[in-house]
Amino acid sequence: VMPGELTTAIGAIGDPEGVREMGLEGLPGVDQVIPISRPYKLASSELSHHEPTVFDVDGRTVGGGETFCLIAGPCTVESPEQTRAVASAVAAAGASMLRGGAFKPRTSPFSFRGLGESGLDILAEVRAETGLPVVSELTDAAHADRFAETVDVVQVGARNMQNYGLLEVAGKLGKPVLLKRGLSSTLDELLMAADYVLKEGEERVILCERGIRTFETAMRFTLDVGAVPWLKLHTHLPVIVDPSHASGDRRLVGPLSRAAAAVGADGIIVEVAEDPEVALCDGPQQLYARDFPAFAAEVSAHAELVGRRVA
Amino acid sequence: VMPGELTTAIGAIGDPEGVREMGLEGLPGVDQVIPISRPYKLASSELSHHEPTVFDVDGRTVGGGETFCLIAGPCTVESPEQTRAVASAVAAAGASMLRGGAFKPRTSPFSFRGLGESGLDILAEVRAETGLPVVSELTDAAHADRFAETVDVVQVGARNMQNYGLLEVAGKLGKPVLLKRGLSSTLDELLMAADYVLKEGEERVILCERGIRTFETAMRFTLDVGAVPWLKLHTHLPVIVDPSHASGDRRLVGPLSRAAAAVGADGIIVEVAEDPEVALCDGPQQLYARDFPAFAAEVSAHAELVGRRVA
Amino acid sequence: VMPGELTTAIGAIGDPEGVREMGLEGLPGVDQVIPISRPYKLASSELSHHEPTVFDVDGRTVGGGETFCLIAGPCTVESPEQTRAVASAVAAAGASMLRGGAFKPRTSPFSFRGLGESGLDILAEVRAETGLPVVSELTDAAHADRFAETVDVVQVGARNMQNYGLLEVAGKLGKPVLLKRGLSSTLDELLMAADYVLKEGEERVILCERGIRTFETAMRFTLDVGAVPWLKLHTHLPVIVDPSHASGDRRLVGPLSRAAAAVGADGIIVEVAEDPEVALCDGPQQLYARDFPAFAAEVSAHAELVGRRVA
Amino acid sequence: VMPGELTTAIGAIGDPEGVREMGLEGLPGVDQVIPISRPYKLASSELSHHEPTVFDVDGRTVGGGETFCLIAGPCTVESPEQTRAVASAVAAAGASMLRGGAFKPRTSPFSFRGLGESGLDILAEVRAETGLPVVSELTDAAHADRFAETVDVVQVGARNMQNYGLLEVAGKLGKPVLLKRGLSSTLDELLMAADYVLKEGEERVILCERGIRTFETAMRFTLDVGAVPWLKLHTHLPVIVDPSHASGDRRLVGPLSRAAAAVGADGIIVEVAEDPEVALCDGPQQLYARDFPAFAAEVSAHAELVGRRVA
Repeated sequence: VMPGELTTAIGAIGDPEGVREMGLEGLPGVDQVIPISRPYKLASSELSHHEPTVFDVDGRTVGGGETFCLIAGPCTVESPEQTRAVASAVAAAGASMLRGGAFKPRTSPFSFRGLGESGLDILAEVRAETGLPVVSELTDAAHADRFAETVDVVQVGARNMQNYGLLEVAGKLGKPVLLKRGLSSTLDELLMAADYVLKEGEERVILCERGIRTFETAMRFTLDVGAVPWLKLHTHLPVIVDPSHASGDRRLVGPLSRAAAAVGADGIIVEVAEDPEVALCDGPQQLYARDFPAFAAEVSAHAELVGRRVA
Repeated sequence: VMPGELTTAIGAIGDPEGVREMGLEGLPGVDQVIPISRPYKLASSELSHHEPTVFDVDGRTVGGGETFCLIAGPCTVESPEQTRAVASAVAAAGASMLRGGAFKPRTSPFSFRGLGESGLDILAEVRAETGLPVVSELTDAAHADRFAETVDVVQVGARNMQNYGLLEVAGKLGKPVLLKRGLSSTLDELLMAADYVLKEGEERVILCERGIRTFETAMRFTLDVGAVPWLKLHTHLPVIVDPSHASGDRRLVGPLSRAAAAVGADGIIVEVAEDPEVALCDGPQQLYARDFPAFAAEVSAHAELVGRRVA
Repeated sequence: VMPGELTTAIGAIGDPEGVREMGLEGLPGVDQVIPISRPYKLASSELSHHEPTVFDVDGRTVGGGETFCLIAGPCTVESPEQTRAVASAVAAAGASMLRGGAFKPRTSPFSFRGLGESGLDILAEVRAETGLPVVSELTDAAHADRFAETVDVVQVGARNMQNYGLLEVAGKLGKPVLLKRGLSSTLDELLMAADYVLKEGEERVILCERGIRTFETAMRFTLDVGAVPWLKLHTHLPVIVDPSHASGDRRLVGPLSRAAAAVGADGIIVEVAEDPEVALCDGPQQLYARDFPAFAAEVSAHAELVGRRVA
Repeated sequence: VMPGELTTAIGAIGDPEGVREMGLEGLPGVDQVIPISRPYKLASSELSHHEPTVFDVDGRTVGGGETFCLIAGPCTVESPEQTRAVASAVAAAGASMLRGGAFKPRTSPFSFRGLGESGLDILAEVRAETGLPVVSELTDAAHADRFAETVDVVQVGARNMQNYGLLEVAGKLGKPVLLKRGLSSTLDELLMAADYVLKEGEERVILCERGIRTFETAMRFTLDVGAVPWLKLHTHLPVIVDPSHASGDRRLVGPLSRAAAAVGADGIIVEVAEDPEVALCDGPQQLYARDFPAFAAEVSAHAELVGRRVA
């Protein structure tokens, strides 16, 4: 009990859930209840004694501070030719993994929503040809088995960061999970969402900052680059950055990718197209495949300055 | 073509999706692409020629400007006794429908997540006893059939507003859908989410403003009360308000409910408990059942001033 | 000292400024410093033992829960005729005070910025003719003496809420101060800004919620109507609402004004014009003078339901 | 005129102010008025034909893409000894200019507000000793003459970004102006604020991104690092970054400063103290002077990778 001039503070220790369930907030005489412990558990760096999580995805090291993951590929898988062309280009420039959407969550039901299962088939084919591990977004528990067979990293998108059923399904597939921050989720909430995956036994979770929604509309979202070093202080999980979705503008993807490398991210995930003008989805934010080698070299140089090499 | 001093504007008509797919944004010489048409379709008031959607839920009229829906009940179904006690209290004070959560989405995986199917059983029982139609939240497509049998209105929660698979499932159950605004969703996005339900053939969609996430942390969320008259201008669908989740503080629920009635909402959905101090979830925001009759009378008086009677 | 599983909490009492100056935050071993006392002092309801501040402005009672202030007038004083016409119309419909801008803060330097001193002359004239006390915005300390002579209530605008020099000047003029919330200011910051005025000895401060900046762009700002009951719990100062600037759309001003009355505000401040289409500033948000009597009657009815009569 | 399915679009060319003054918005039959031209003028890159503004501050080149300005110093000038110690340390490590506050805007009137005029005297002294040009914040037009004599760059702080009287005064002092982005100002508004200075004839304006207010409270503000490349596309003015105020946490200042260099900023402005634990203001965000040389070397390395050397 800490008496003050106008109010009296009372400190309490123990399980914060228990305190919340006491319903103190809102009782007569109670001004406010302020939680002082962190709301996430398994994702907490205290729990790992500040040892970072490190793991391999088909030979590429993720996490641990010595590597930088360059994940690149088309926004959406549109055809075998388009996917193969982009994959070859990014593989030649040293990309670590291939990204590509088969099932696309779209704000309007009248937008193109991806090729679905045949998109996964194309990814599997291109994976075999290029040797690049594949990252793709799971949007529905019904597709879980198919993803477990096909992809190397299961992505949970920003809109589904609090789709708890999906998080639990993703945590059971035996694959690393790339978890994107919800567009208005706090970092505490991101780590609690990671807890949903971790408690299923899947310890290989990659967090991804992809821009948050703010009052500023000059860019599509506001890339919260400070989230990277903050997360490094508070969690043992690797953290990457998605500058393509954050900005929605390819002219900003280069600068923001360099910033991600310089700030200490474990990697980036970017969209690349042979011919963004005819892409069925998010064309303006996709890098030209012909510019990718120069882009990758620039970003790698900044990553090297902070002691990392491309995975 | 409209030439200006520094830039040249070019007007284009036709399908905005088509324009987006042309990838003009980001081309050399293109400063910005500004969409001028509304992105939602089926939910648009233009489509209904400004006629509001009106429908019945077991004798209670929703929409149309002459009624006010008073939906009340516990946050979470915890036991038959607790649910029955609250339901009787709100029924006696003239509530239109009973709310109650059987499956609860929780930010942390370590929080109480509801009774699940047995919660639905309790709601069915209490529905039979009190005659109140039941509103409950669907969180997973796997429970869809069970909801179709048991509840009168299927709620899709804020966290799932962009869970498009779930929206489509909800639109196929043959039940009215109560769609909550995502905590950082624009009103345009809310109406596009409604489009997902409407395109499945379910025309009975109730929109719900429940507070948005802003920089202000004094209250849990910021109730965007202006959303109600804005939605009335732009959509034919009924609009209700959830002051309990918006504020997270029962001392504000009364004033905000009166504001919702005065601003022209088609109803409110509020949480009520016999004994909020022992509620397993969200205690501080629940009204005391003993205060509910006075609360209902106050809110109804404001609704009557704008020409509505409690449904 | 409260030892926990992963971290140890230490409670401290005394002056929070003192604690802040110790620089604990950022020291090795310190995870976070969480202030538990309210940062404002003079504006705090604890300080007034929960007695509300009540005062008169030329016979109109402000604060105290029994009156409702209807402040109305043109956005900007453009001519004697225009100002007189609006003032007569709102006076006839029972308005409590006249608002009108002589000096206008504008985002772009190329916009119309008001008539300046001759605008104040016009306000003084119309004040004499109609008997309505006058509210006008002070934007520059250089005009302070002129304001002290002319206006009845000195307004400090949202953009200047943290212009501390101006707050101190306003607090010394011997006139009540209407302090608008900054467009992204927290309620704590609003009360700290009020402290700047109060510490100069001016106890008659009216707080004004006028919409905050959020991610939502459907309306100009998001009216934070919940701020009113929250402020009522935390400060003794009267609180009014500005629905004109909040929405920027006259079609929403009626509903939002009713909401303000129903939620328990001590008044509203609205913009009215004879002919908004030719107004030099903010035309779309101004009510038509011919609609004002019906508007005033509607709002008053909601105010009466919560026990208030128009001042 | 562009007829559509549900609405008809009408394109208009000419002065956007003129269009706004027509009051079309809110007229019957008008759904929305969408401005398509940029609202700023003098700051626009179109106006300078995409040539960047470059100028010298006592031999240090600002703007133009080949230099990087390292501005460092204490948050607040507290004593000659403290200021001299920090200034010598940062000068030795190659800083371009010295920052230091004499007049401090503070949220609460009960906080320390700087030494005032004697703070300026100390800065002048230390300037003479170290040869470092001085940047300090002008908070009140009353101090303008004193600033014109003493400082090399006049800072206008975030809280005063829309204090238009102060902007005009700052534009008349014959000194370069460092203009900080308001904590919830859009980039368009920042450029319109710059227009206020530019129209007074002062062409040497430095823009500063210092973090914006968002829903995320893990850090003090959210550094909008994407603002830098966006501004580079839209204005000819130099752009720097303030990672100290953005994060409020010295552990994040290093990573964010590296990100600022990598993203293409023209410089950074950071707070440094000999002994942050006893600083009277903002201790937790100040770098230790003893760590500054390593910090400067790291940041410079990233600046060099994008073709810049420290000014």
